[in-house]
Amino acid sequence: MAGVTKMGKRNLYLKTVSVEEAQERFMEKLEPCLEVQYEEIEVVNSLHRITKEASIARYCSPLFNASAMDGIAVVSAHTLGASEKTPVALEEGRDYVVVDTGDPIHPPYDAVIMAEDIVETESGEHTILQAAAPWDNIRPIGEDIVTGEMILPSNHKIRPMDIGALLSAGILTIPVVKKPRMAIYPTGTEIIEPTETPGEGDIIESNSRVIENRVTEGGGIPHRFPAIPDDYEKIRETLVHAIQTHEMVIINAGSSAGREDYTVQVLRELGEVVVHGVAMKPGKPVILAIVQGKPVIGLPGYPVAAYMAYESFVVPVLNKLTGQVDTQGSRAKAVVSKRLVSSLKHREYVRVKLGVVKDKLVASPLARGAGAAMSMVKADGCLIIPQNSEGIGAGESAEVVLYKALTEIVQTLVVIGSHDLILDLIADRLPAIYQDEYLSSTHVGSMGGLMALKRGEAHMAPIHLLDEADGSYNVNVVKSLFKEPMALIQGVGRVQGLMVKPGNPLGIQGFEDLRAHRFVNRQRGAGTRLLLDYNLKKRGISPDSILGYSQELTTHMAVAAAVGSDGADVGMGVQSAAMAMGLDFIPVGEESYDFALPQENLEMPEVKHFIEILKSDALKEKLTALGGYAIEHSGEILHIDGRE
Amino acid sequence: MAGVTKMGKRNLYLKTVSVEEAQERFMEKLEPCLEVQYEEIEVVNSLHRITKEASIARYCSPLFNASAMDGIAVVSAHTLGASEKTPVALEEGRDYVVVDTGDPIHPPYDAVIMAEDIVETESGEHTILQAAAPWDNIRPIGEDIVTGEMILPSNHKIRPMDIGALLSAGILTIPVVKKPRMAIYPTGTEIIEPTETPGEGDIIESNSRVIENRVTEGGGIPHRFPAIPDDYEKIRETLVHAIQTHEMVIINAGSSAGREDYTVQVLRELGEVVVHGVAMKPGKPVILAIVQGKPVIGLPGYPVAAYMAYESFVVPVLNKLTGQVDTQGSRAKAVVSKRLVSSLKHREYVRVKLGVVKDKLVASPLARGAGAAMSMVKADGCLIIPQNSEGIGAGESAEVVLYKALTEIVQTLVVIGSHDLILDLIADRLPAIYQDEYLSSTHVGSMGGLMALKRGEAHMAPIHLLDEADGSYNVNVVKSLFKEPMALIQGVGRVQGLMVKPGNPLGIQGFEDLRAHRFVNRQRGAGTRLLLDYNLKKRGISPDSILGYSQELTTHMAVAAAVGSDGADVGMGVQSAAMAMGLDFIPVGEESYDFALPQENLEMPEVKHFIEILKSDALKEKLTALGGYAIEHSGEILHIDGRE
Repeated sequence: MAGVTKMGKRNLYLKTVSVEEAQERFMEKLEPCLEVQYEEIEVVNSLHRITKEASIARYCSPLFNASAMDGIAVVSAHTLGASEKTPVALEEGRDYVVVDTGDPIHPPYDAVIMAEDIVETESGEHTILQAAAPWDNIRPIGEDIVTGEMILPSNHKIRPMDIGALLSAGILTIPVVKKPRMAIYPTGTEIIEPTETPGEGDIIESNSRVIENRVTEGGGIPHRFPAIPDDYEKIRETLVHAIQTHEMVIINAGSSAGREDYTVQVLRELGEVVVHGVAMKPGKPVILAIVQGKPVIGLPGYPVAAYMAYESFVVPVLNKLTGQVDTQGSRAKAVVSKRLVSSLKHREYVRVKLGVVKDKLVASPLARGAGAAMSMVKADGCLIIPQNSEGIGAGESAEVVLYKALTEIVQTLVVIGSHDLILDLIADRLPAIYQDEYLSSTHVGSMGGLMALKRGEAHMAPIHLLDEADGSYNVNVVKSLFKEPMALIQGVGRVQGLMVKPGNPLGIQGFEDLRAHRFVNRQRGAGTRLLLDYNLKKRGISPDSILGYSQELTTHMAVAAAVGSDGADVGMGVQSAAMAMGLDFIPVGEESYDFALPQENLEMPEVKHFIEILKSDALKEKLTALGGYAIEHSGEILHIDGRE
Repeated sequence: MAGVTKMGKRNLYLKTVSVEEAQERFMEKLEPCLEVQYEEIEVVNSLHRITKEASIARYCSPLFNASAMDGIAVVSAHTLGASEKTPVALEEGRDYVVVDTGDPIHPPYDAVIMAEDIVETESGEHTILQAAAPWDNIRPIGEDIVTGEMILPSNHKIRPMDIGALLSAGILTIPVVKKPRMAIYPTGTEIIEPTETPGEGDIIESNSRVIENRVTEGGGIPHRFPAIPDDYEKIRETLVHAIQTHEMVIINAGSSAGREDYTVQVLRELGEVVVHGVAMKPGKPVILAIVQGKPVIGLPGYPVAAYMAYESFVVPVLNKLTGQVDTQGSRAKAVVSKRLVSSLKHREYVRVKLGVVKDKLVASPLARGAGAAMSMVKADGCLIIPQNSEGIGAGESAEVVLYKALTEIVQTLVVIGSHDLILDLIADRLPAIYQDEYLSSTHVGSMGGLMALKRGEAHMAPIHLLDEADGSYNVNVVKSLFKEPMALIQGVGRVQGLMVKPGNPLGIQGFEDLRAHRFVNRQRGAGTRLLLDYNLKKRGISPDSILGYSQELTTHMAVAAAVGSDGADVGMGVQSAAMAMGLDFIPVGEESYDFALPQENLEMPEVKHFIEILKSDALKEKLTALGGYAIEHSGEILHIDGRE
């Protein structure tokens, strides 16, 4: 943390431009300078390389007139008149020679008869029952490949079968596009290598590793360098050197506007900054520059922003340098399960989970933050909200770029509702045991899950909803919301409790003690919040008397983190979150975490397998080891009859 | 070539089994023995590897409560009441500290205000116009990743974004499936390395290179060994050794039944031959064996047969060993442009070119021979004729496994008709100049091309059809066959002539000399055949008087090859074929090779670009260098009006 002087240095962005305009402006300036380089390599090592020019066959294949069968090469004229009734006897050396498949055929022999069609008589004579026509069963020279024929065109990605044909045609080396060398520089003083132990304020550098592997996938050679500290001279010096030895330079500019400015200033000094700031979210603080005719791209620091900016601006340049055709990923139309508001100021990229429910492709948005690296890992696709749109309503459809094959998505059990670690465990087991079946879970809370079920956008909703009237869980609320026959697959009993600092320094024992300390609450509608309210009411404690009752966080872990980092003295949640954060835990009750679904979905194979895993000893052992779970009824089914 | 004794050794196949039965029988016996192996590797080197087990986060991300913005960290309670009308002045150190994005936030600070929202008054004071709520612009510890959370499930193929998340979660090494080692042995005494100069009877070994690269693509480590000669003891010895050091052995058994038998006998001695001979075409002589619990697969010798058998039998085993899910290639329904007859004895795999004509996906079969390696290179897909089918009629639809993305296929100009090298040249230029546009050409002769055009299965038909009435080319036949408005894009004039042995030892000068020598003819309907007949008729020469008039070959090159290999003394064809085979050439006339198409197709961008390339100086230079072409009218368009 620095002084106010640091603030004084900050510049506002240049006026941001649209994604298309940024791409066009950059490529237009860049294209005259970009030069694809070539090299001659051995054909046997050319897999997946891109050809420079058409390859022309040096040899024919076959190289000579060759027998296509195991049998005998004959003079066709000597076989005339042969039939079932008038077999013709042949004499070796005069009428035929024995040949194997691939043997050369010379005059006077001009046809081959298969071994199976030769009849050996009792007297040991070899006879045939059918005449041969000239060229029968002979592969003429050049049948497959002719000298001078084009084997591969230019700009072609070499496949295994291409290598076979090239070698057969006598081609041993081939000119291909040389892989461009791409320098990748993380920047930032707070950045540490993953191998170092992080202290407070340290950020583990991982973006450069993502970029490095995307470059490899894209056909470039990545050179990933250690982080450059935030030092104008160092950045300048490093860039001057990198540009000499690489076809492209990528700077991961750090997420701070101050730092980004260093990079922009250095690039202005060394060359031309074509674009600074693009109307996309995430990904806005991107820098597109040209230094000595070479592209230098500054990517934002947040992981998702870096990734999206890479796809939009680095990939087109890399495609040019590697001679590849721009390929857009597969796209599909999907129904959005949750309203998405977006601004007219930018194009927005929203990661989504996908699944097919009642023949509809359903997209459930994941965390939208630029820092949410896990949203990239969990995503099945990316939904694009155009710059001229204010958003997409729930139930409306939108275009999605697919990160997974549609065939995989079809066999995905779509689970929307409240989160528990048990979903991760089952999501892990399902594809491992039942090939090609997947579980996708989206976390919108219990009521959100039941609403998704009602709209036909989920197969199953994990819920923990208390009926304040009788203290029971889940059954009553499902009965009251659905007309059709429903079921509850019983999940686990979860111990809920108060989370306090290690050693419980304030001596908190129960709900009565909340009034004296700084509390942090969950959001309205959360099962934990309902349990709290039920207990406060039962005890006659007014919410107004609790300091921080109105301070809402949206996950168990966020509450645990708030307590752990002294943002609060006490919060309420499940035992596993407290354990993960090293907090003390005071149990106050048990809640039922179950899976609601229409009865007809019980027939889905994915649901049957879900139940099998839920009942398995392997899963129960894991839950026992984690602690805080009651598992005696896991996998049992409660039927909730439909109403008229 | 060996004596009859060689024939005596040959065994008939065991009864062949269907593809499905062979796969099931083999996998059933094999699965109890197959053991997937694992190894722990560095996460930074784990791209595209398959995870062994779920990876669990060691750290949270962020690791601490962090500022999400550049700005100031404030005590939210000190900002209460701030508004446009009642700005609140803040004092550094007491009310706020300056923070950059990512900086840790400590109590008493509990919110961040963006730099842009701070107003500096004339007196130098920093004021705010809006109160901050607790946790505003703070990324709580664990917001993205929580300790104990599952980052990746088991059996997951690691992507670049996964590597980023693993590193952020403090995971440095990861257990993954160890790549299986696959031994690949070509066999055969006639086989030479591509680097050797082939003599007669030699076959350039290329199958092992195709297999090697397919193994690499499939996630295995290929070890390709030099060819084993046809020697029982050598084969036995080599196999015994290979099985110790590899997870799987592939023998490319050579195409001879005799040789295959060696392999089968050795495998019977060393282990169990589960399947020998499968009802598929090409690919029948496949051997599926298990030796010491390890799979040993004998692939057929012909290139296409080896490839198809690899896909059917090696891929499923390799998928098991690499922990990958079986993925079937993309499939589509296509209309077949030519009748395909097949036998009930086997499932047949036919390579096809694909294109979209009038919204129909059209499949044009390529050469069906097992030796036609170029059919693999040229194919856009593979059509499967089931074992229980006798074939598919022209215009009927069938399922095709796609080798190319449908998006590429849509932008393909479908050309069906007579072949000339000029099509290869344009097919090469088109995607190089106009990204994403392709030309697919199928060779069925001029009349076949016009019929395909009539059935709406081609965009354009290259033809060279003589009108015997007046000696003109192409215009009259198109006019007589089509009612709608048609066009001819003029192609090239081609010099046709008689091909004779080098030095013309028989002194052949013209059509009159054909009577005295062994002739080889083209098939009925071929343009060259029509030109011959026209000239014979003009000169009053009877076809019956020509020895070999009824001997038909289907390409210029096959005719040239027949003359070159002394299968005949003289044949007729284009100059380029004679030159390719080193023959002498006696010009006898010029024919027009043009491109017929409906006038409406002239509007297609691919057709416009085709014409541009046809007219280009670059193409004309190439044709001039090849010789035998008249190019003065190339690219000019003749309109042929429609009839009522």
